Amino acid sequence: MTDPLPQGATIGILGGGQLGRMLSVAASRLGLRCHVFEPGAEPPAGHVADAVTTAGYDDTAALEAFAASVDVITYEFENIPTEALDVLQALRPIRPGREALRVSQDRLTEKTFLTDLGLRTAPFADITDAASLKQALEVIGAPAILKTRRFGYDGKGQARISSPDEAETALAEMNGAPAILEGFVEFSCEVSVIAARSADGSVACFDPGENIHREGILRTTTVPARLSASQRTDAVLLAAQILNALNYVGVMGVELFVTPQGLLVNEIAPRVHNSGHWTQNGCTIDQFEQHIRAVANWPLGDGSRYADVQMENLIGDDLDKLPELAKESDVAIHLYGKAAVKPGRKMGHVNRIIRG
Amino acid sequence: MTDPLPQGATIGILGGGQLGRMLSVAASRLGLRCHVFEPGAEPPAGHVADAVTTAGYDDTAALEAFAASVDVITYEFENIPTEALDVLQALRPIRPGREALRVSQDRLTEKTFLTDLGLRTAPFADITDAASLKQALEVIGAPAILKTRRFGYDGKGQARISSPDEAETALAEMNGAPAILEGFVEFSCEVSVIAARSADGSVACFDPGENIHREGILRTTTVPARLSASQRTDAVLLAAQILNALNYVGVMGVELFVTPQGLLVNEIAPRVHNSGHWTQNGCTIDQFEQHIRAVANWPLGDGSRYADVQMENLIGDDLDKLPELAKESDVAIHLYGKAAVKPGRKMGHVNRIIRG
Repeated sequence: MTDPLPQGATIGILGGGQLGRMLSVAASRLGLRCHVFEPGAEPPAGHVADAVTTAGYDDTAALEAFAASVDVITYEFENIPTEALDVLQALRPIRPGREALRVSQDRLTEKTFLTDLGLRTAPFADITDAASLKQALEVIGAPAILKTRRFGYDGKGQARISSPDEAETALAEMNGAPAILEGFVEFSCEVSVIAARSADGSVACFDPGENIHREGILRTTTVPARLSASQRTDAVLLAAQILNALNYVGVMGVELFVTPQGLLVNEIAPRVHNSGHWTQNGCTIDQFEQHIRAVANWPLGDGSRYADVQMENLIGDDLDKLPELAKESDVAIHLYGKAAVKPGRKMGHVNRIIRG
Repeated sequence: MTDPLPQGATIGILGGGQLGRMLSVAASRLGLRCHVFEPGAEPPAGHVADAVTTAGYDDTAALEAFAASVDVITYEFENIPTEALDVLQALRPIRPGREALRVSQDRLTEKTFLTDLGLRTAPFADITDAASLKQALEVIGAPAILKTRRFGYDGKGQARISSPDEAETALAEMNGAPAILEGFVEFSCEVSVIAARSADGSVACFDPGENIHREGILRTTTVPARLSASQRTDAVLLAAQILNALNYVGVMGVELFVTPQGLLVNEIAPRVHNSGHWTQNGCTIDQFEQHIRAVANWPLGDGSRYADVQMENLIGDDLDKLPELAKESDVAIHLYGKAAVKPGRKMGHVNRIIRG
């Protein structure tokens, strides 16, 4: 076990979006600095970072200079090119480690990993061509969703198949990318466990939150979720099992379906997660600080919940609601500093304290 | 009334210490950026600011370039040279305004302003030489404290006079600077009101906190303070009176002595204040965001208190307690990223949630 990162040490963050932005703010509370690596111009995380490198993930010299300037590397998104990780890993520790990225970068690998652990997922099948899709539809049935194995987020790279005659069109939408067919699951609700694990193997989970999606994008997370005591325990134990199996260091988002037959794992994200934003106003230590603590070899903090909270994403022109939201009681605003409003773009979120 | 600052606008902050650091973090939540102006190298606020100018307050070109790059200017300390303010004010609004700075930069002007408002302070007298000091001591009595009128903080520029024969030594310690003699006041406790006023004249006060000082430096602030309901109301009304009289925009710290004869004003600070740090973990909107909201023409936020909190400063080698503090429940750590530990230097603070 290495020592905790000292005052003034620097954490490198791959990705400069809102998650990197809020990670950098959390790091500052612990006296740590952040250096953000981001290909796009004007990254939101750059406004509150000590340093920003604007370069592509294929720019080996920039990656090497970035790694040399930091003490440890973490990331705000899972789709980091393998070649970039190879360059960085030779120079500095990457937390969470490569195994979590390998597993979560590919939907098929992820689902196989989960079922190998004895956990349950929606039915799925590897799709390589029209024949395997036809066969999978016979087993899984329609409706089902065809998804690219890699690089999907917020509902992108997905095609719904309502009946077998839509299979061909859906497959064409994958543009030849390796794909996975997932069956639908009847669930009463979707919940997330935001779980953290430190290098010494300690695990701490935030109270599960209940998620509502619309058009493939998370809209609200509410805590407490409508779960029985035993479901709550199951959810937390299941998340801990995943983190332990990966020898994970950091925060992970684990999305679960609540079904009459028990909890199914929908998806895991090896990073802080949108469904954990409520922790900023519901806990003494939020998910961002918890992640920084784990990555910096600090002890995990006290993530116990002191308030009921509803997190609501501000998407696209939801930002027009800002003047009203700013006047409301019990509403904490968290904006991402993105200049351009686009439909479907996450511009910020609010955490609403729910009084009993 | 001008419009609220839009997403991506920039607030200029004079001073790059821990207060500027926490202001910049608060600004990021509202989608705003900060540009820090600070003569010293490696300012703590720079780790979380969008831009930093390292230049002296006599560097007119640097001040002009700074002003040109921001939408509005605020500050984290009151002792800004008048000449620098003149340069800046010609280019951008400064909030809080000049009158608050003029009053609070000089202990004599401040005390006169307060008594002119009908508020009570400790007895005081203008000291220009040995004769005026002798006369003042006859009226006020010993023990008393001789203080420089300007540039004092954390107990610096002060000399205690326990009996009249110490007058000469105390006066010598002022190095010829204009001074003020202040009498001691018997008080049961010292409390702070952190008050905010927006450009439209709305005032919002946080719940008063009770302060403990040691060696002239704030050690702890505890909320709720031990005040009766009427003392609490008096404290808040008195603070509001001060802000209104100054046509103030922003957050002000108002330190009060609680005495058997009522509340006396100890001192005012036209900025966010150490005794308001508890708001970070006791309120939905903390003092830093409240200040940014006022300065940026946003509506003031909901500063109602949801928890009992004790803020404790980490001074000098208090930082050695960090490994233990990091493991404690209900403790939120806020460090300032200062590389060098020095005796008496504020390195950070913790907010401890007090469970009922």
